[in-house]
Amino acid sequence: MNVLVVGAGAMGRWLAERLSAEHAVAVTDIDPERAAGVAADLDVATDTGGQYDLVAFAVPMSTVETATREHAGRADAVIDVTGEMRDTLAALRESFPDAARVSTHPLFAPANEPGTIAVVEDTPDDRTNRILDALTDAGNELYRTSIAEHDEAMETVQAKAHAAVLAFALATDDVPEPFHTPISEPLAELADAVTTGDSAVYAEIQGRFDGAVELAAAAERVATDAESVAALFEEVTE
Amino acid sequence: MNVLVVGAGAMGRWLAERLSAEHAVAVTDIDPERAAGVAADLDVATDTGGQYDLVAFAVPMSTVETATREHAGRADAVIDVTGEMRDTLAALRESFPDAARVSTHPLFAPANEPGTIAVVEDTPDDRTNRILDALTDAGNELYRTSIAEHDEAMETVQAKAHAAVLAFALATDDVPEPFHTPISEPLAELADAVTTGDSAVYAEIQGRFDGAVELAAAAERVATDAESVAALFEEVTE
Repeated sequence: MNVLVVGAGAMGRWLAERLSAEHAVAVTDIDPERAAGVAADLDVATDTGGQYDLVAFAVPMSTVETATREHAGRADAVIDVTGEMRDTLAALRESFPDAARVSTHPLFAPANEPGTIAVVEDTPDDRTNRILDALTDAGNELYRTSIAEHDEAMETVQAKAHAAVLAFALATDDVPEPFHTPISEPLAELADAVTTGDSAVYAEIQGRFDGAVELAAAAERVATDAESVAALFEEVTE
Repeated sequence: MNVLVVGAGAMGRWLAERLSAEHAVAVTDIDPERAAGVAADLDVATDTGGQYDLVAFAVPMSTVETATREHAGRADAVIDVTGEMRDTLAALRESFPDAARVSTHPLFAPANEPGTIAVVEDTPDDRTNRILDALTDAGNELYRTSIAEHDEAMETVQAKAHAAVLAFALATDDVPEPFHTPISEPLAELADAVTTGDSAVYAEIQGRFDGAVELAAAAERVATDAESVAALFEEVTE
């Protein structure tokens, strides 16, 4: 198939590379130089306009609406790797009303592949299936889910988890290495992993998914209720 | 040496077992049945009064003052495994003013031995050295520190780390396993490890060491400043 990958960031580069094993891929980006760089690196084309068999969106959550409108109707099949399902599928439905549509969320950074990819098959067809095949051929596992289940899970595994780790990163003081415990050492490693990641991605996640407010309220309870920490334990383990 | 271990909880049991390899150990506890149980399990004695070569305190932080007063002067050498240095050494100095005194903090639960043991050698002598030898013979490493360095480090590796993990445990919702990420999965494992631990120990730590308030303030910043999460990252990585 002729596939257009919209977005030449880390995820777009990864997706273009995976799909180029089986398909003729072209890349585009709001920054043409970035698109040209990825195309050169991967030996694929840049977008020269016209129709494709499938358009694949790999853009930040905050630009999905703009990007899908800009490329509206340029294929009869679309997928995305946005990481958010509700607003993204709404945008895909609006700009590709009669198309085959599948939304995916690779639950890993490209460097950590293979992993699990959450999939909502809105209106799948043979074309979207071939894209999913290319992702499983690379060793990834698909987890079929719903919009609601996915977006709700992101509140815990992304918004709350990142907020807890980032709060620790912000509040922590450097301590001599020998003091680290079986709890603090892995937590400090998570803090390193998050804070050396792409801050824009983490900011988008906090902007889109609820959870950080609930995490902060829980942290406040631990702080103000030190005498009753034992009761909090009971609540958690109930 | 004749050694009295005061406290027959998890740490007291561990200490009595380690010391009994080389020394004649007796065990006591505010709960005589618990002391008798540990003594029977380890084939050591229970306390029948009188003097010892060394008294080893393995009691909760909140009972150190009471315990040291109760056993004041019963040996010319004392150690403890309390996990807090300032108040504990003050109590040891008051009740054992002319004794050899060393405060230790095994930075692990007994099940995770061997590990690192923080040590403040207040007034060490040959007797306290023999106790430290018994702990290193079991494969543990000593880290010599000061009261201030130890207690300050506990604010990060214990109070703040536990508060972050416990806040996540309180705020988290159950999610289907496939959604877990390289960040949320280890964090959820830490939450399990903390909340299946001894809640009284975690409550004592929060009661004694500052840190949870600072952690909650950091979590609040993440929650209220979602738009500026990128700026928080810069602050952390500076």
